[in-house]
Amino acid sequence: MGPLPRTLELFYDVLSPYSWLGFEVLCRYQNIWNIKLQLRPSLIAGIMKDSGNKPPALLPRKAQYLSQDIKLLRQHFQIPIQFPKDFFSVILEKGSLSAMRFLTALSLEHPEMLEKVSRELWMRVWSRDEDITEPQSILAAAEKAGMTIEQAQGILEKISTPKVRNQLKETTEAACRYGAFGLPITVAHVDGQTHMLFGSDRMELLAYLLGEKWMGPVPPAMNARL
Amino acid sequence: MGPLPRTLELFYDVLSPYSWLGFEVLCRYQNIWNIKLQLRPSLIAGIMKDSGNKPPALLPRKAQYLSQDIKLLRQHFQIPIQFPKDFFSVILEKGSLSAMRFLTALSLEHPEMLEKVSRELWMRVWSRDEDITEPQSILAAAEKAGMTIEQAQGILEKISTPKVRNQLKETTEAACRYGAFGLPITVAHVDGQTHMLFGSDRMELLAYLLGEKWMGPVPPAMNARL
Repeated sequence: MGPLPRTLELFYDVLSPYSWLGFEVLCRYQNIWNIKLQLRPSLIAGIMKDSGNKPPALLPRKAQYLSQDIKLLRQHFQIPIQFPKDFFSVILEKGSLSAMRFLTALSLEHPEMLEKVSRELWMRVWSRDEDITEPQSILAAAEKAGMTIEQAQGILEKISTPKVRNQLKETTEAACRYGAFGLPITVAHVDGQTHMLFGSDRMELLAYLLGEKWMGPVPPAMNARL
Repeated sequence: MGPLPRTLELFYDVLSPYSWLGFEVLCRYQNIWNIKLQLRPSLIAGIMKDSGNKPPALLPRKAQYLSQDIKLLRQHFQIPIQFPKDFFSVILEKGSLSAMRFLTALSLEHPEMLEKVSRELWMRVWSRDEDITEPQSILAAAEKAGMTIEQAQGILEKISTPKVRNQLKETTEAACRYGAFGLPITVAHVDGQTHMLFGSDRMELLAYLLGEKWMGPVPPAMNARL
């Protein structure tokens, strides 16, 4: 028997484009590295408020850079990410509360669906510029991910229960306790130590901490499958 | 004859820790990749002012993260970087104007010394917690880098001339025109296109744009020399 897998917690919000990049990289490596990946749906708005941070896109020159950066990373990471046309309305006004409550309810009831439904929500908001706030939008993502309409409806009915609301609040608070001032964060538990890594550009450092091999954002095993 | 080397411009300030990381990585790869590296000393304070950005360390939770991040990157990048004890006084109050003017004068008169003197200034402020604002501190760095005291004195006498002051201003403005809101930025000129990459964590993306091989922050040829 080999050494036990190390636990990685990925705190993310589907409103955050760099969360998507971090998410896909860790999903690709979860069967390559000796890790146990725990997906932790959180609310980025709560983290911004608690830390006193501001969305980078509020600074015009950062907004300009982010849009170029995402275009390049799209090719390099092979993820069909694309800025929504009306970024400020979609990302800063509409937000992701219902979507993240849906993912939180999923994590409690059907954790095996969390990866696929998260991806379909990103595909909506960060690839095809589609809504993720209306109930039918969330249901469409869930169905596309392979849930039956009854299953998805059942989850949707639970998103306003105290249990789900509290769980999302608790996960967001846990991210803050780890020191988050934005998302994604990856919390790596390695040899009794806890490392919090911010963003999608510390994955090579993560490999170093884990003693695993970094093979770029599209590891060869993945390449072969494409 | 192979293809012509692509030009990379690195805009940096020795006050910026991530500039040091980016600088060392590019210096390591300059003899591995088919590139021509141009070092462009700039003033981070001018870039912050022009873009309306604020130093990240002003947000307490970011300051806490930066200090942890630098500790991990120190090992991973094999660069002896270390936070100065009184970060706010050294980095945010004292600044780097004379040091960056000295490097600017060097870039005009002895460009072959720019790499080594830049490194010795970083070794002072970001490794050994030593001053870089007093004339004797700057002279000590220059001497350590291999300049004679006469050479170094000659450069120091020129740092307040209009030529040097204007050159630093122009380089800083050039960084702003490329969209900088902080440092380092790497400007890659590839096949008639210009890409601006912010920070020290886009080096793997840079390799991808150049069609070169990324071998981590400490490429094997470098490892062999250590």
